[in-house]
Amino acid sequence: MATVAFIGLGNMGGPMAANLIKAGMTVTVFDLNPTAVEALTAQGALSAKTACGAAAAADFVITMLPAGKHVRSLYLGDDNNKGLLDVVSKQALLIDCSTIDADSARLVGAKAAEKGIEFMDAPVSGGTAGAAAGTLTFICGGSEAAYQQAQTVLTVMGGNIFHAGAVGAGQIAKICNNMLLSVLMVGTSESLQLGLDNGLDPKVLSDIMKVSSGGNWTLEKYNPCPDVMENVPSSKDYQGGFMVDLMVKDLGLSQEAAVASNSSTPMGSLARSLYVNHARQGHGRRDFSSIFEQFSKKK
Amino acid sequence: MATVAFIGLGNMGGPMAANLIKAGMTVTVFDLNPTAVEALTAQGALSAKTACGAAAAADFVITMLPAGKHVRSLYLGDDNNKGLLDVVSKQALLIDCSTIDADSARLVGAKAAEKGIEFMDAPVSGGTAGAAAGTLTFICGGSEAAYQQAQTVLTVMGGNIFHAGAVGAGQIAKICNNMLLSVLMVGTSESLQLGLDNGLDPKVLSDIMKVSSGGNWTLEKYNPCPDVMENVPSSKDYQGGFMVDLMVKDLGLSQEAAVASNSSTPMGSLARSLYVNHARQGHGRRDFSSIFEQFSKKK
Amino acid sequence: MATVAFIGLGNMGGPMAANLIKAGMTVTVFDLNPTAVEALTAQGALSAKTACGAAAAADFVITMLPAGKHVRSLYLGDDNNKGLLDVVSKQALLIDCSTIDADSARLVGAKAAEKGIEFMDAPVSGGTAGAAAGTLTFICGGSEAAYQQAQTVLTVMGGNIFHAGAVGAGQIAKICNNMLLSVLMVGTSESLQLGLDNGLDPKVLSDIMKVSSGGNWTLEKYNPCPDVMENVPSSKDYQGGFMVDLMVKDLGLSQEAAVASNSSTPMGSLARSLYVNHARQGHGRRDFSSIFEQFSKKK
Amino acid sequence: MATVAFIGLGNMGGPMAANLIKAGMTVTVFDLNPTAVEALTAQGALSAKTACGAAAAADFVITMLPAGKHVRSLYLGDDNNKGLLDVVSKQALLIDCSTIDADSARLVGAKAAEKGIEFMDAPVSGGTAGAAAGTLTFICGGSEAAYQQAQTVLTVMGGNIFHAGAVGAGQIAKICNNMLLSVLMVGTSESLQLGLDNGLDPKVLSDIMKVSSGGNWTLEKYNPCPDVMENVPSSKDYQGGFMVDLMVKDLGLSQEAAVASNSSTPMGSLARSLYVNHARQGHGRRDFSSIFEQFSKKK
Repeated sequence: MATVAFIGLGNMGGPMAANLIKAGMTVTVFDLNPTAVEALTAQGALSAKTACGAAAAADFVITMLPAGKHVRSLYLGDDNNKGLLDVVSKQALLIDCSTIDADSARLVGAKAAEKGIEFMDAPVSGGTAGAAAGTLTFICGGSEAAYQQAQTVLTVMGGNIFHAGAVGAGQIAKICNNMLLSVLMVGTSESLQLGLDNGLDPKVLSDIMKVSSGGNWTLEKYNPCPDVMENVPSSKDYQGGFMVDLMVKDLGLSQEAAVASNSSTPMGSLARSLYVNHARQGHGRRDFSSIFEQFSKKK
Repeated sequence: MATVAFIGLGNMGGPMAANLIKAGMTVTVFDLNPTAVEALTAQGALSAKTACGAAAAADFVITMLPAGKHVRSLYLGDDNNKGLLDVVSKQALLIDCSTIDADSARLVGAKAAEKGIEFMDAPVSGGTAGAAAGTLTFICGGSEAAYQQAQTVLTVMGGNIFHAGAVGAGQIAKICNNMLLSVLMVGTSESLQLGLDNGLDPKVLSDIMKVSSGGNWTLEKYNPCPDVMENVPSSKDYQGGFMVDLMVKDLGLSQEAAVASNSSTPMGSLARSLYVNHARQGHGRRDFSSIFEQFSKKK
Repeated sequence: MATVAFIGLGNMGGPMAANLIKAGMTVTVFDLNPTAVEALTAQGALSAKTACGAAAAADFVITMLPAGKHVRSLYLGDDNNKGLLDVVSKQALLIDCSTIDADSARLVGAKAAEKGIEFMDAPVSGGTAGAAAGTLTFICGGSEAAYQQAQTVLTVMGGNIFHAGAVGAGQIAKICNNMLLSVLMVGTSESLQLGLDNGLDPKVLSDIMKVSSGGNWTLEKYNPCPDVMENVPSSKDYQGGFMVDLMVKDLGLSQEAAVASNSSTPMGSLARSLYVNHARQGHGRRDFSSIFEQFSKKK
Repeated sequence: MATVAFIGLGNMGGPMAANLIKAGMTVTVFDLNPTAVEALTAQGALSAKTACGAAAAADFVITMLPAGKHVRSLYLGDDNNKGLLDVVSKQALLIDCSTIDADSARLVGAKAAEKGIEFMDAPVSGGTAGAAAGTLTFICGGSEAAYQQAQTVLTVMGGNIFHAGAVGAGQIAKICNNMLLSVLMVGTSESLQLGLDNGLDPKVLSDIMKVSSGGNWTLEKYNPCPDVMENVPSSKDYQGGFMVDLMVKDLGLSQEAAVASNSSTPMGSLARSLYVNHARQGHGRRDFSSIFEQFSKKK
């Protein structure tokens, strides 16, 4: 069985690592938070004193970190500290599952390639529920060989596994998708509220648009109008689901990419502004479909 | 068999009336353009010298006109001319298939109700191809009884037939759907181009987003990026399909409704502005997915 | 001295009529609200039982009403009631100071012209303070002769008096100006907050931008950031000034005009959406510079 | 007299350095382009083989470079090359006049402070004409002492000299101003075109709005509608002035800052999208007031 190093044991990384253990793999974990480490060692993980210590002998190194600066620092090291690239085996496959800027992914990928090491970015979607259930979606950026090799570990943690292109393409594809998702959510919300303001039943309107040219994922799976669908955040006071703050983060990444590539994203940047306003009004930790309230409230 | 009066024999009305004739109904037609009338009488229609003449003895009166002012004028008449409401049988069902402002539909509906006549708005989607094939979508606003009664004629001309609510609801549901469609189209275009600008293959990115949370009708049926799908306007230099000018018209109706109901539609109004700019640059008669070029062009 | 009929004695019309009385003119007033009438008769106005009664013998007829439908109804009458155009002297000048849609103004102007009567639209800005002080701005649409004739009464009630063009041009110029004002206010708010979020002193930033290429009326007279200027609404918890609800009304008029003329107004329509959201959150009766809070709030 | 090192002799830097020479200062220049260097030595400048060589003995070091990466590289050096901070005198004042991201300015400022060297960011506006005439505007970020010391050289090159705050504040104030400027330009353009589409004379409408609440710098100095003002780019087929590509660059910087500080800038980001579309259609090298054509074109 494969030996895996897993670095970053937060709300997502913890259950992802647990699934690898359950599948019988030898998993060595590291996190700055000792409680997070203990939760995994209690399930059978080994632990190491440092990230480099965990990674040194692994076939697969999987990282799950908050932002690009953490990924760069961990992989590349600095004047005083070695980075993962300085210690891992040339045969190892490095997989970063963090959602970060594509430039950081490309930088790490280029430095890895200089040393003859395979690196792949593989950001996920599916949330903590998907992490626990092993049904995450992975969007991979890397060589075809790396993509094939990664199936060993990714199929244990996820359902859909896409290959978007070269290193960095996973990050780009994810932010394109999530930017589009934000546009779908805002556009669907304002369309439903326009119907409501004109006397339509939101359930009837949703049913019509769902099978018409307005059909989209939010109408299928995640209707933002309360009490149209059961068991979605909008019918539970927008608790659970995908937090506004996380959507704001992803929309920030998409805007940084758009600036870097000189691209125009009028809908995506407008969605970002509306979500930032929403977060500033105190809704950052509610589900992102709560943007519906920006249109529906009447005082 | 039902007797039908059909008034307004343009690109849509002509083939719709033809399908009623083919189904064996007795159809009396009227249009200000004699050539349009002759095309139908050659297929077996009767003709009348006036719209009121055509409608006086019909079980169903179907109208297909350009704008609200034409509908109000035809149904209500004026100081010098009788309107349809002055001449039709109390048992007749009046069905207006035009795409117009909901206020005009409600006004005609209210005047009809005063006289004990059933009126229904039933705007269509599906374009000239759907009109010819008898596969249009109808979105109906009217009483349940009217909706049931209308099946006799609507099922001959269309596939999906929805009941959105009371009179006017058909218009509202249609403009909500088409406003959302415009948002999907613009949002999908800018997302695909952001991917392209960052080195992704638009086909790969489309395949990923289509089955992810960015999934929507445009990715399924009508990808705006050339050469991703076959047999869609984007792969035929944006010929055919649904014209930019018609989308501008529908977005104008949605904005008028939003002003009247004091609703906020940031995405829909932005889409309208982008489509108006696009039309002013000379693209009004191309397919509405050509908005993609606003993002993709590089000179 | 001129004899004046003044119809519509609300927050604006009341003090405007009072200034005409103070200037020694014979003013006959009418309003549906008897209390409003009494307030003016106490200051020396005559009153009439109907609007037509007030207007029949006047040299100038001035109207100040809420919306286009009221203006059309008052001037044109209906099947059961005479309109002002049926009773006024051919020598009278009719001046509508309401802020309404240009189409209504043009319709009344055309009907007046058919009867050989001069009509002018002359919407105002300056608020209730300007109405009381006699310092309103009037933006006039009508013939040069009407514009000259109107000076007799307008100079009593206002300071700046502009001639924008033919009938209806006053309304168009006003909504163009107010749409632009809303864009200045939102754009200035978000720019100041971007500076604040990056550590700048809003007073210093305002001083720099005011004399640079970002200079605009809001920085000069009406800074939206609290405590940058004294005696502006932002330094008084956004009380007083020009209400959000009134800006929403004007932005609705500008959007209706933009739809009718097939014009693109991306900034103006976005400002409208933001102001509608703001009003729906309960801020409709606060000053319109309170839109700053959409950007500044941090919970 | 002061000795000055001037590094970066492009369209802006060249004439700025020339003004220092004319004022009698001893100026040592450096640029990678020998032609640019020769143009200055012909006017009396000394030259150096390297940027560090030029800066080593100077009282003032002034830099004018394209982007943040060039500034970081020049000041900080790398593994193989010394940076300016390694060679300049502790008494020297370093002034970077480039328009770059605030983070780069802050980084260089912090590294300078560690070495006890004063650094100030001082981005300019006023264009090549202002550079030649010595009438540039400088917006400075740095200590009060640095700001006072800098007057010696800045007053030779410019007219308005502002102190926005600590290091980095110059960059932030400039992008806030230029973001607001882009909003003024787009908002004014669409307002003028809405008036035009409704029959108004753009000169009359401009005159009204200029002295009303829509008043702003673009109406005062830079009307975007052709033939309203003389001697502005809009009356010269949008030649000269401030290029669209430069506005796109500044709006990119403002969006990066907004993402970094989690700020919402709906108007600024919409302006950026419209300007990027405009540039992609081939207008990148025309004056930024040509955005008016996005609204005015009618084919």
